[in-house]
Amino acid sequence: MPLPSPLSEPALLLDEVRVRRNLDRMTRRAAAAGVRLRPHFKTHQSHAVGRWFREAGVEAITVSSLAMAEYFVDDGWHDITLAFPFHPGMQGRVEALAQRAAFGIVLADAAALEGVRFSAPLDVWLKIDVGSHRTGLDPDDVDGLRALAASVAGRGDVRLRGLLAHAGHSYAARDTGEILAVHEQTLMLLGRLREDLAGCGPLEISVGDTPTCSIAESFSGASEIRPGNFAFYDLMQWQIGSCDAEDIAVAMACPVVARHPARGELVVHGGAVHFSKDALALDGERVFGLAVNPAPDGWGELQRDVRLVRLSQEHGIVSAPADVIARTRPGDPLLFLPVHSCLTADAMGRYRTLAGESIGMMGRGHRAS
Amino acid sequence: MPLPSPLSEPALLLDEVRVRRNLDRMTRRAAAAGVRLRPHFKTHQSHAVGRWFREAGVEAITVSSLAMAEYFVDDGWHDITLAFPFHPGMQGRVEALAQRAAFGIVLADAAALEGVRFSAPLDVWLKIDVGSHRTGLDPDDVDGLRALAASVAGRGDVRLRGLLAHAGHSYAARDTGEILAVHEQTLMLLGRLREDLAGCGPLEISVGDTPTCSIAESFSGASEIRPGNFAFYDLMQWQIGSCDAEDIAVAMACPVVARHPARGELVVHGGAVHFSKDALALDGERVFGLAVNPAPDGWGELQRDVRLVRLSQEHGIVSAPADVIARTRPGDPLLFLPVHSCLTADAMGRYRTLAGESIGMMGRGHRAS
Repeated sequence: MPLPSPLSEPALLLDEVRVRRNLDRMTRRAAAAGVRLRPHFKTHQSHAVGRWFREAGVEAITVSSLAMAEYFVDDGWHDITLAFPFHPGMQGRVEALAQRAAFGIVLADAAALEGVRFSAPLDVWLKIDVGSHRTGLDPDDVDGLRALAASVAGRGDVRLRGLLAHAGHSYAARDTGEILAVHEQTLMLLGRLREDLAGCGPLEISVGDTPTCSIAESFSGASEIRPGNFAFYDLMQWQIGSCDAEDIAVAMACPVVARHPARGELVVHGGAVHFSKDALALDGERVFGLAVNPAPDGWGELQRDVRLVRLSQEHGIVSAPADVIARTRPGDPLLFLPVHSCLTADAMGRYRTLAGESIGMMGRGHRAS
Repeated sequence: MPLPSPLSEPALLLDEVRVRRNLDRMTRRAAAAGVRLRPHFKTHQSHAVGRWFREAGVEAITVSSLAMAEYFVDDGWHDITLAFPFHPGMQGRVEALAQRAAFGIVLADAAALEGVRFSAPLDVWLKIDVGSHRTGLDPDDVDGLRALAASVAGRGDVRLRGLLAHAGHSYAARDTGEILAVHEQTLMLLGRLREDLAGCGPLEISVGDTPTCSIAESFSGASEIRPGNFAFYDLMQWQIGSCDAEDIAVAMACPVVARHPARGELVVHGGAVHFSKDALALDGERVFGLAVNPAPDGWGELQRDVRLVRLSQEHGIVSAPADVIARTRPGDPLLFLPVHSCLTADAMGRYRTLAGESIGMMGRGHRAS
């Protein structure tokens, strides 16, 4: 694989073949299950990668911030759900977006639409807490939900589109059986709730985290799925069984800067501002990344015994066997699969394809108001 | 304080008065101790904030990456140390920098300069591991250090400038007494080592993490200090005693998006891509930020019982007392002091001053090769 030469600083490598393969698998899975694929673009945050989705037939997308919605509308996306709770401070920017695209917002607090009137039509999804307890309306409060649904359905400025959930607790699963159990509970709960709210008009059901969407064959009752991470996958998904290691489509190339054989460690350029600080527990150790060997067409198998074990702002501390340390020189590249590819991509702001092309992302500055 | 109105998304507020006060205190401290202040600019990463340092008389700076060096050379800084270990892949960019500024690099591996010849003159600092065990040469290996120092001193293309250390283990201190103990051990060790290397010419000593530089009165034997975080400080520094809460110069304004009174929690827009995932342990709980009350001239006292306790990519979960939750509405702003201001600033990429001015930072894209 042609790494940047010389590798003066960390580079986030993107394997387009793996991304397109992951994408192809998910589009076929959605088609087979008869659900719309509305992928979450917070993972890649890139016009260029988004176009690969368009080429695969994707027309509707999910984003997690106003800035991300604006960025993708600028590239011609015309059916967007902002799957982050609406609050009144968003009104002006949401209206501007709704004039440029079919736009959906999510309601996670009954008071969030109070005092708000939209001048452009848009969809409202009720966010239901199906067990992750991050946010969402309480599914057991059927009376409250019925009142809220009726109130939204009765407004002239929005359309009550349906029930939306993110089963984030699937990330706590430790095998595919546990993932499927979360999936089935989620669909059962939302299906029952839709019956309870039958008087408020036809309601769609939108679900979709990467673990359940990667494993489940059926999405009974749902009309769309919104996985995001599956485009790249990462070690967290590999650990819970959503993907194989060879599905992971991003790797960080880090130059070695120092060797500490007595400690059994190498130091690389690659820290918290590159990987983010998300870690996973592996063999009882906190791990921020696992090495892979470079290969002619990208990278090969996991090297489980070469692992990022500590990060500071720019430094990564790597524990490695003595023979690996002995043959390593300062400036040599090491490749690491990230623990959480969404945060790693967000931190880096740029990809390098295996063909050596640089691919841009939404800018950080874009985020600020 | 004039917050962005409406507050559609998180904004990182910067209190210029506090920054200038922190800066003034550190410049006076350095002057009193008779050491050069070479502040680390990785904390703010901003031309505009860097100019405040210049106005305070600072002429020499520290950076942690090539991209950061290039960014600050572009704004006229002409005396820069790259306090991150040199490796051969850096050669071309380092040479280009050394043609534009007095430039220093750091050696943390005896082999890092093998095969490298510079066409522009520059300084080399030997990085000594004074106890943080992140990286640095072993101070007990006096023979090895003497051989390395002689080899560097004998090269025609670089000047052996001195010994450089970062006592990062001062961050593990829990009070100022422990910070001072780390400081004194560091200076004693480096002073003894300089005597051991007396045959290699006059050597400077460069030290400086924010905890020791904020507490110590004397820097006996050192010629310069390199603190960075002190410009903003943060909850980590507050917890170990480097600063008071009112010295912390950045706060994140986050709109509330949902209330969960039964859980005793609020949800705000403000997640890992805004704060970073660095946490501290407070009262036995993992905390990602503590609230402060808005005040006419910025913000006031810490609200220790309103705290960020979980973060996902965009969501922040806040535990708060019932009365705070009861009077909060979606869209209301909450202000949080960050745990680690360097990573928070890096994640945000932009500041908003209390006067409402937007201040840019080095771009993410700038980082990629």
